[in-house]
Amino acid sequence: MAEDESETAWPDISGHIHEGRHVLPVRVYFEDTDFSGFVYHASYFRWCERGRSDFLRLAGIEHAALAGGVHNGEPCAFAVRRIGADFLKPGRIDDILEVQTVARASTKASITLSQTIIRGAAPIFTLEAQCVLVSFSGKLLRIPNELLARIPQLSS
Amino acid sequence: MAEDESETAWPDISGHIHEGRHVLPVRVYFEDTDFSGFVYHASYFRWCERGRSDFLRLAGIEHAALAGGVHNGEPCAFAVRRIGADFLKPGRIDDILEVQTVARASTKASITLSQTIIRGAAPIFTLEAQCVLVSFSGKLLRIPNELLARIPQLSS
Amino acid sequence: MAEDESETAWPDISGHIHEGRHVLPVRVYFEDTDFSGFVYHASYFRWCERGRSDFLRLAGIEHAALAGGVHNGEPCAFAVRRIGADFLKPGRIDDILEVQTVARASTKASITLSQTIIRGAAPIFTLEAQCVLVSFSGKLLRIPNELLARIPQLSS
Amino acid sequence: MAEDESETAWPDISGHIHEGRHVLPVRVYFEDTDFSGFVYHASYFRWCERGRSDFLRLAGIEHAALAGGVHNGEPCAFAVRRIGADFLKPGRIDDILEVQTVARASTKASITLSQTIIRGAAPIFTLEAQCVLVSFSGKLLRIPNELLARIPQLSS
Repeated sequence: MAEDESETAWPDISGHIHEGRHVLPVRVYFEDTDFSGFVYHASYFRWCERGRSDFLRLAGIEHAALAGGVHNGEPCAFAVRRIGADFLKPGRIDDILEVQTVARASTKASITLSQTIIRGAAPIFTLEAQCVLVSFSGKLLRIPNELLARIPQLSS
Repeated sequence: MAEDESETAWPDISGHIHEGRHVLPVRVYFEDTDFSGFVYHASYFRWCERGRSDFLRLAGIEHAALAGGVHNGEPCAFAVRRIGADFLKPGRIDDILEVQTVARASTKASITLSQTIIRGAAPIFTLEAQCVLVSFSGKLLRIPNELLARIPQLSS
Repeated sequence: MAEDESETAWPDISGHIHEGRHVLPVRVYFEDTDFSGFVYHASYFRWCERGRSDFLRLAGIEHAALAGGVHNGEPCAFAVRRIGADFLKPGRIDDILEVQTVARASTKASITLSQTIIRGAAPIFTLEAQCVLVSFSGKLLRIPNELLARIPQLSS
Repeated sequence: MAEDESETAWPDISGHIHEGRHVLPVRVYFEDTDFSGFVYHASYFRWCERGRSDFLRLAGIEHAALAGGVHNGEPCAFAVRRIGADFLKPGRIDDILEVQTVARASTKASITLSQTIIRGAAPIFTLEAQCVLVSFSGKLLRIPNELLARIPQLSS
């Protein structure tokens, strides 16, 4: 089965975007919890990164392509520059959660995404992340217009 | 949205069992890779644990229920006792992989699962895990017959 | 070798506190990096948690004791309620970093810690974390006076 | 403080080798545990990787140098090819453990390391790992003689 067939076989694997809002389901496994019985605090950051990756993927921006230098001739990746986060309720083993992602602001210098993790209808974690584009040699890059133009906008 | 509605909304979230073989898709994210550019070796163990969890879940055995003492009156969890693993090919960022899980042997003392991670049709990692049931106070427990009876058997 | 002997054998294992400032060294390993070649963003949160744990440990507050209900009769653990973080420079494989931790504010409701990760003399990451005490059944607890009294204060 | 000064400031940071046996202390933190209250199974693999890295480091083989192509002109890293592991006793939060590493066999094709994690005098986990050298483009490389010659041998 080739890559394209995998995506056909698992149509939800990257979540879905609707009116500029991306939703990705995540399951809470052993690896995500700690001895307190709740979700380990850094797991929420991992899940939000998955949400950001699939938000960009569905917009046609893949890490492998950035790393291959496709977009601006230089191997690069998005990196987090600043994060603010609120832990509202604890997640637990076996929970099914949803990571919601929307774009707040996009400039040549950075993209700011706002993310909420919900269980059922209840938010349990919120995050705002300012992301920048960094070359593999460590330089801050301008985000090319062709990438900025692909970022889905929230229809409010 | 309640838990049951989440499972309805994301029908693939726990993978699928067909003729005793469980399949769970996983995406390779930032968190799964390391500076070599490939998948970090311990990520394969995390993915296989997800596969084992969902294999058991679809058989009606949930971690939260075990932790709640539902099955044998004592809070407990499955734990790995022995692992053998072969790393055949490197996984890479953005890959969609599938974790396949089958039961090899089930006794009152342990359950042995055989797992293969594939990309397309090619196996990239294989693992055999012997799992035991351990109480939260650290005692080895017999696996109740009602649990053993639920373990799907491979139709060969 | 008993636990006490381990601490004698490795005198730096929990870092050191000097004038209210705790310092813990961390090495960057495979597990901490991602395919970009730099440190994975959530690794900084794991390291800062290690710093907070050892800051409290050297103040005589151990997770195992909290989990055993020693301090207030109820099994509990510190949990993060809010985090703000700035990623200043990328960490790299083999780096030796230092996590610095100081207490900013301590009340019956929460303890706020300010943390900086440095490489050589240069800060590469800063974090402010508001921490609360949560019972294993999920209740927010008052932080006992005897614990608050132990929190080292920065001599400014 | 430069890198060399960091190593001076924290003389135990890479553990120690004595008569061919490397020992690295590790502390059990939140990140290493799961909801069962014990250490998460894949944490042992992360710790053993730290032990292997520092075993090689003290032998004069650094990841950053391999990645920079210093040893054989091609960016490369050691990768695990095969692992066998036994989980003997559960680790717990706050434990101080020691990762012991010795070389079993070294050829141009692979290096096999034998590792034991102990708490006090008691082994809680054992692992045997066969490691190979892989270029960043994915090719299996011969291990240069100058590297093989540096691998400490166990004096039995």
